[in-house]
Amino acid sequence: MYHGNARSKLKSIYDSREVEHMNIILLSGGSGKRLWPLSNDIRSKQFIKIFKTQDGAYESMVQRVFRQIKKTDEDANITIATSKTQVSTIHNQLGDSVGISVEPFRRDTFPAIALAAAYLTDERHISPEESVVICPVDPYVEDSYFEALKALEKQADKGEANLVLMGITPTYPSEKYGYIIPESSLDVSNVKTFKEKPDVETAKKYIAQGALWNGGVFACKLSYLLDKAHGLIDFTDYEDLYAGYEALNKISFDYAVVEKEEKIQVMRFGGQWKDLGTWNTLTEAMEEKVVGKGILNDQCHDVHIVNEMDVPILAMGLRDVVISASPEGILVSDKEQSSYIKPYVDGIEQQIMFAEKSWGSFHVLDVENESMTIKVTLNAGHSMNYHSHRNRDEVWVVISGCGKTIVDGMTQSVTAGDVITMSAGCRHTVLADTELKLIEVQLGSDISVHDKQKYALEYDAVTS
Amino acid sequence: MYHGNARSKLKSIYDSREVEHMNIILLSGGSGKRLWPLSNDIRSKQFIKIFKTQDGAYESMVQRVFRQIKKTDEDANITIATSKTQVSTIHNQLGDSVGISVEPFRRDTFPAIALAAAYLTDERHISPEESVVICPVDPYVEDSYFEALKALEKQADKGEANLVLMGITPTYPSEKYGYIIPESSLDVSNVKTFKEKPDVETAKKYIAQGALWNGGVFACKLSYLLDKAHGLIDFTDYEDLYAGYEALNKISFDYAVVEKEEKIQVMRFGGQWKDLGTWNTLTEAMEEKVVGKGILNDQCHDVHIVNEMDVPILAMGLRDVVISASPEGILVSDKEQSSYIKPYVDGIEQQIMFAEKSWGSFHVLDVENESMTIKVTLNAGHSMNYHSHRNRDEVWVVISGCGKTIVDGMTQSVTAGDVITMSAGCRHTVLADTELKLIEVQLGSDISVHDKQKYALEYDAVTS
Repeated sequence: MYHGNARSKLKSIYDSREVEHMNIILLSGGSGKRLWPLSNDIRSKQFIKIFKTQDGAYESMVQRVFRQIKKTDEDANITIATSKTQVSTIHNQLGDSVGISVEPFRRDTFPAIALAAAYLTDERHISPEESVVICPVDPYVEDSYFEALKALEKQADKGEANLVLMGITPTYPSEKYGYIIPESSLDVSNVKTFKEKPDVETAKKYIAQGALWNGGVFACKLSYLLDKAHGLIDFTDYEDLYAGYEALNKISFDYAVVEKEEKIQVMRFGGQWKDLGTWNTLTEAMEEKVVGKGILNDQCHDVHIVNEMDVPILAMGLRDVVISASPEGILVSDKEQSSYIKPYVDGIEQQIMFAEKSWGSFHVLDVENESMTIKVTLNAGHSMNYHSHRNRDEVWVVISGCGKTIVDGMTQSVTAGDVITMSAGCRHTVLADTELKLIEVQLGSDISVHDKQKYALEYDAVTS
Repeated sequence: MYHGNARSKLKSIYDSREVEHMNIILLSGGSGKRLWPLSNDIRSKQFIKIFKTQDGAYESMVQRVFRQIKKTDEDANITIATSKTQVSTIHNQLGDSVGISVEPFRRDTFPAIALAAAYLTDERHISPEESVVICPVDPYVEDSYFEALKALEKQADKGEANLVLMGITPTYPSEKYGYIIPESSLDVSNVKTFKEKPDVETAKKYIAQGALWNGGVFACKLSYLLDKAHGLIDFTDYEDLYAGYEALNKISFDYAVVEKEEKIQVMRFGGQWKDLGTWNTLTEAMEEKVVGKGILNDQCHDVHIVNEMDVPILAMGLRDVVISASPEGILVSDKEQSSYIKPYVDGIEQQIMFAEKSWGSFHVLDVENESMTIKVTLNAGHSMNYHSHRNRDEVWVVISGCGKTIVDGMTQSVTAGDVITMSAGCRHTVLADTELKLIEVQLGSDISVHDKQKYALEYDAVTS
């Protein structure tokens, strides 16, 4: 139900704000296994550091897009709409200043965009009269794309239509995308109709009629999003929407809004736009053949190596192959075939071997029947939760850095070489002064990630 | 110089021995990198467990050959001529009863065979009048090959020639082998001449003339070997030869003896004989496509996976490719190309990540600037050397099994969960009652395998 009172009350707060910089909501999608072994249940493809930057470091898709937006509009107001599981990684990769609209549960794009709209209004105090651009976080694009986003937002500002979509000029008759049929061939046109993902022959006909790819990129007034959100969801404000999020139905924004909208325009974009959803398309966008330790002999043609392991990969006499290795596994695939990876990966039961956390990262080194050995890296100034385990003892051996451990309330300074033993039930944490690495040996017959009880840490314990 | 006195003195000791069973010297060659990442500086290809046996376990080349010899002649007197570095692995794979003639340094086949002949005479008390078969440890052959070895030995017994070679019927004009040209096409013939490894066209001509492959397999009287040894090397007995071994020149038995011998016969062998020196030939001999964790999709043709890692390998849409992964690295190669591997592997600087020892094995889990983490497995009843390190502290966390640690002379019973800390300089060892596994964390700025001082262990310490 739509709640008119809430809207008009909010409006007065925002009228004093200057409208200047881009508001962008980046939709950061789910896990996906199409880029296994680099993406998995807890790491999405947009966080894989695979693109070489000018200074020789590597950046992820999300870092690349973030950097490109900042280059186009330094003060752009960027909000990432994502799930809880990605928050740590986003802060690790983009810093703490980026706005994140956290979906407490996955409920498809309509609820996610509704939540982000409420977040922008109630938490970031953006005026509902401002326009906002919504786009996926993971396209591989040149800087011209972000200029096009600006133009999209300006077109939305004009109010000629309720929604302005980006229509991407097709480069081949793809079966992977929906198509937008515009009324005219002008740069900005009304939308005549939408077409579902077609087969190649149908796609060719669409393209002959001037159809454009629908990349899920659009601009509109924030008020429009709020209207649609309140129209379909009964909530008062951001906090209320967040609290009731679990009960929402899964529904896409395209289905709930775009396909029903009458006042809708499309703006052409003819620049480079790539969807890096498979190893085949991802490797096309890589500037280097080898990321990580790898050797290609001169009989290799169009072979890519992406190696996150410490040991080298040697490739000889291969053609059109991608090789990727991580602590999760090793993929060797013909590039064309790589798009059919999903059912095979679904069949692999593999413990999570590596994860980034808000406080650092962990890496499983060894798994035995009644023990597990892990390397834990804590970022400077960070700590684990204060926690205990019912069914396992643990031993920490600090291998570098310094900090403090707290074990059952007792604080102790630690540095490389210090050993801390913790029986089951014992509460414990580490606080890193510098970056601190330790080897954790878990011992017990029933080791599980679910065996973890968290506790609040008293202030005295931390500072003593 | 030849020492006639030593010979005639020994002869009287042996005359009473019955001559019944085969005497075989198996030459176990050097490291070799052609089967990287499974073979490396410390593990030779003949120890890779890659052949599925009838009971579903896997055996190595050396285990397969050993089992086949025992099947042909249960009481065969088998001696393996090899270097020090292989002794632990040979005992692990073949048990403690196998005879090993240990070359203290690598000096090519003539010194190795001379040393083995002296070992058989002086240490195993074999009569010099008995015949002995010498062959490489790593051919991939059917049982008929071992019947042929018996026949070879019997032919040597006759004394018609000083040396009887096996001549393998060529199956294609190979450039990889030397050729033997026999005087006749009889099963046993005098040798007309030898030919070096030819090109394909020349090989075809040789084969048209009835040439046979020289697989380095021959039989002769033990006395003949001793004569040749004393002829070229100045030594009294086995111990003397062993002690002076480092000073010997590298020279092959073919060059020093075979090519110069006038009284030499060749015996035809037409059975299956494969030299598994490259991934291409090795995978041909594998009964299974996948050894270890691996998945081939149905678009793979003639793809083999040999995976010694704990994580899965997924192969999609490949043809004629071998994939092999070990803690040392990952190879993905077109099978034909795999024979050109050596220079690439020579260029890889990689720490040894896994090794079998006389007491068990170790596996490097993690390497940092000032620490290294290792999993150590001790076989039941075995112990490490009692040792110390100058430049590193160590921490042991026992993760399974039970045994005793001795640290600076103090003995302590240990079991899973026990932690032992050892400062630099401190003497230490573990004795395993059952199989015992521990995580060892090494800490220091100058960690090196060479930093190890060994000590004798007093009896009291072990039994207290």
